[in-house]
Amino acid sequence: MNLPGESQQIGRILRYQELADRLAELIRKGTYPPGQRIPSVRQMSQQQGVSISTVLQAYLQLESLQLIEARPQSGYYVRRPSGQPLPEPEMSSHVADPRLVSLQELIMQIMRDSSDPSLVQLGAALPNPHLLPLEKINRCLVNAARSAGEAGHRYIWPPGLEELRVQIARRSANMGCSLSPNEILITSGGTEAIDLCLHAVCHAGDIVAIESPMYFGTMQLLEVHGLRALEIPTHPKEGISLEALAFAIAHNPVRAVLTISNFNNPLGSTIPDEKKQALVELLAREDIPLIENDVSGELYFGDRRPQVCKAFDQKGLVMLVSSFSKDISPGLRVGWVAPGRFQPQVEWIKFTVSSSAPALAQMALAEFLQSGGYDYHLRRMRREYARNMELLSEAVMRYFPGGVRLTRPAGGLVLWVQLPERVDSLELYRAALAAGITLAPGHVFSAAQRFPNFVRLNASEFNYRTERAVEKLGELVKGMDKLNGSNPLDEGWSVGRRREE
Amino acid sequence: MNLPGESQQIGRILRYQELADRLAELIRKGTYPPGQRIPSVRQMSQQQGVSISTVLQAYLQLESLQLIEARPQSGYYVRRPSGQPLPEPEMSSHVADPRLVSLQELIMQIMRDSSDPSLVQLGAALPNPHLLPLEKINRCLVNAARSAGEAGHRYIWPPGLEELRVQIARRSANMGCSLSPNEILITSGGTEAIDLCLHAVCHAGDIVAIESPMYFGTMQLLEVHGLRALEIPTHPKEGISLEALAFAIAHNPVRAVLTISNFNNPLGSTIPDEKKQALVELLAREDIPLIENDVSGELYFGDRRPQVCKAFDQKGLVMLVSSFSKDISPGLRVGWVAPGRFQPQVEWIKFTVSSSAPALAQMALAEFLQSGGYDYHLRRMRREYARNMELLSEAVMRYFPGGVRLTRPAGGLVLWVQLPERVDSLELYRAALAAGITLAPGHVFSAAQRFPNFVRLNASEFNYRTERAVEKLGELVKGMDKLNGSNPLDEGWSVGRRREE
Repeated sequence: MNLPGESQQIGRILRYQELADRLAELIRKGTYPPGQRIPSVRQMSQQQGVSISTVLQAYLQLESLQLIEARPQSGYYVRRPSGQPLPEPEMSSHVADPRLVSLQELIMQIMRDSSDPSLVQLGAALPNPHLLPLEKINRCLVNAARSAGEAGHRYIWPPGLEELRVQIARRSANMGCSLSPNEILITSGGTEAIDLCLHAVCHAGDIVAIESPMYFGTMQLLEVHGLRALEIPTHPKEGISLEALAFAIAHNPVRAVLTISNFNNPLGSTIPDEKKQALVELLAREDIPLIENDVSGELYFGDRRPQVCKAFDQKGLVMLVSSFSKDISPGLRVGWVAPGRFQPQVEWIKFTVSSSAPALAQMALAEFLQSGGYDYHLRRMRREYARNMELLSEAVMRYFPGGVRLTRPAGGLVLWVQLPERVDSLELYRAALAAGITLAPGHVFSAAQRFPNFVRLNASEFNYRTERAVEKLGELVKGMDKLNGSNPLDEGWSVGRRREE
Repeated sequence: MNLPGESQQIGRILRYQELADRLAELIRKGTYPPGQRIPSVRQMSQQQGVSISTVLQAYLQLESLQLIEARPQSGYYVRRPSGQPLPEPEMSSHVADPRLVSLQELIMQIMRDSSDPSLVQLGAALPNPHLLPLEKINRCLVNAARSAGEAGHRYIWPPGLEELRVQIARRSANMGCSLSPNEILITSGGTEAIDLCLHAVCHAGDIVAIESPMYFGTMQLLEVHGLRALEIPTHPKEGISLEALAFAIAHNPVRAVLTISNFNNPLGSTIPDEKKQALVELLAREDIPLIENDVSGELYFGDRRPQVCKAFDQKGLVMLVSSFSKDISPGLRVGWVAPGRFQPQVEWIKFTVSSSAPALAQMALAEFLQSGGYDYHLRRMRREYARNMELLSEAVMRYFPGGVRLTRPAGGLVLWVQLPERVDSLELYRAALAAGITLAPGHVFSAAQRFPNFVRLNASEFNYRTERAVEKLGELVKGMDKLNGSNPLDEGWSVGRRREE
């Protein structure tokens, strides 16, 4: 060891050079930013499985290249560049011109902007974080981490944690169903649940009938699966048109139907319970599966939860999807599906594409649901959402110009606004973003871009800042509607509530 | 209200009848099992949005049907059936005859059996729960829940939590890479990461070249995506044959290649670093993406972590996948991918199919990685795994009959055993299960079922019970190998280590 042979020496030179090059690259890319301490010689030697002297030589080289500097008693730090050109600025996080970007990028921008506290959040349909039971669910999570031991870190294979499935099954009575725990499969959120259903019943190229307008996330899912969307006219109060759907089915090989039957996003519509039954019977005659997204079903403003289509399902064709992302926590990533007769396929696909849902999160949710605190929390949340929806609607009526229409949702989080025909909602989106307000332009709710003069507003939060934002939007709309008032809207039923004048 | 009209009365009768029917169904299905307390009259009234008297009438009817009983000062309970036929027994959890079930069911059975403490766990390739840093990661999780507030329950949109991506990027130096945090995307586990890569680069019907044998989970993923697997011969020490791969590419429209380059599952092979470079260069010439699953890369037994193919990637064609499921916690569901030039597609697909990975889990992992405890933990884990692998190998050599061969993995969790040709591993699987031992039969590692006389043994744990199980397996193999010794195996290189005789 004291007298290494030539080949050993060359090996060491190669190794320290390699290490120095790699670290220089990490520094250049910003993985270790200026001012950051890099691992100690000892740590690096252990991590890399090379000798202390190899690391020392590499660090010396980086020092001589002025990339790092030693600070006495502290370690090695990435040097701040001096005299060197400054790094390029970070890419701007706001889209410069939404017309120039794809629908995909626009949608991702809207979702990402939802984490930006500097913007007034009228864009993504996210729950109001102040109304989520975070303290309680955190307590359940801490309990689970402490008491579950190994079990809290194992895979919980599909169909998922039994205790949670039992709690969901018990609540199914509220929806008009009587599910058994064995009919329920836990997923990593509601979006994954819909993804699994599409995997189970469709193949690339198939036609799926959807409501129009439709939540953009679902349309993107159809695109990922290579499916074709058939947009069915949808009433802003009563949901999907059964006549139009029957006609579509008679003339197209529709492989599946996808609805948000309660508090539709973006329309706010709720299919009346008798009409739900008629929808289920129509599809049963043709043996067509119905993927029912009921993710907002608990957020009703009235006295009673509306039923789900699944309540009328005799043939196991309804795949009921929901999640805890709208009413407990989006970040836990837990949803569920009752896939009816497609259960074996859905279970196998869940197992194959993502193994299992997070373990401790399932345990915490089961405890929270069992504790009974969930219903108390939901009652409070519903009252607040009903109030915020009312306040937002009033503000739109106050500040937007004549000719504007808006929906009257009986639950959920979103308001759908029809602007004067001459107003382009993408232009409004861009102008609003420049003014610190994010919203969802109508373009993203239809593959055929049928809603250029509509916007969806998130109604989960309302305060002084929201009011000022709506006032600003009203001004922008008025400015864009240069022919304001001279262009009366047709009297169709595309949106339910007319501005009271 | 005191003198309800006839229609109101009928409405109430319909409502209580409906409620009673639904509850009876939930009881019949076992959602509320015998002895279980059902919600109080007050709770039920609030949940269902019906009056107290409606609930009382429904409960009275259920009582008269002997489905529930009132217990003074306590509430209503589901009655235990008396005189009625007992419920049918639960379906057996063990497969009666694996020959009769599909490969899908067999695989799900192997994975589910991994949670059965009554079985000796030689089946699923799961980490040894006693070697996971559960106390530390739980502490990080509790810290995150306490300090993150709302942020711990929001969506963390793709590419995922920056602090975690920074930690992963810093560790990439150990793999021979120099990734920037912006090149990394956090996923809900490694399986999802591979799913996203396949989504991004393949379409149904495409050909994907894979190692043979190949981890069954990956083969199932190909099936879900409608892809065709082209199995490439793979050396038990040095991994995929480049000659065979080059030939396959020359004669087939191969859309992507999928490898586990380090500590292959099930083979234990590791592609030497120079050969990794040759593999990357071969695919670069043809512009074929390589999906590299490096989920066990940290579990090396030697002095130094082997590099990844990604280290040699000049064209952004390598999609490097890993996760924290093998070395920290399977239950957290956090993995990652560095998708190279396919990053925009992979990010969009992640966003679309499952929105985001769990928030608090990402925060806890970032803290754990930053704390420096990770390397200490990994060193301990590697020592234990190396020891367990050695002990399991010795036990197989001791108890299995002559003619058996086994691999010498330089890392990872699994041992691949070639049995005498006359032994059918499905038959062995069945007999072992009856004896309380689970293992993975060779059939599930090839779409073409090329490995009927191989088994994969999980080497993550070794104790007295494991030793007795291997002894029992040896007896079973001897019994099945009726022509034991009379059928010398050919001298090919399909498995590296011959039983020392």
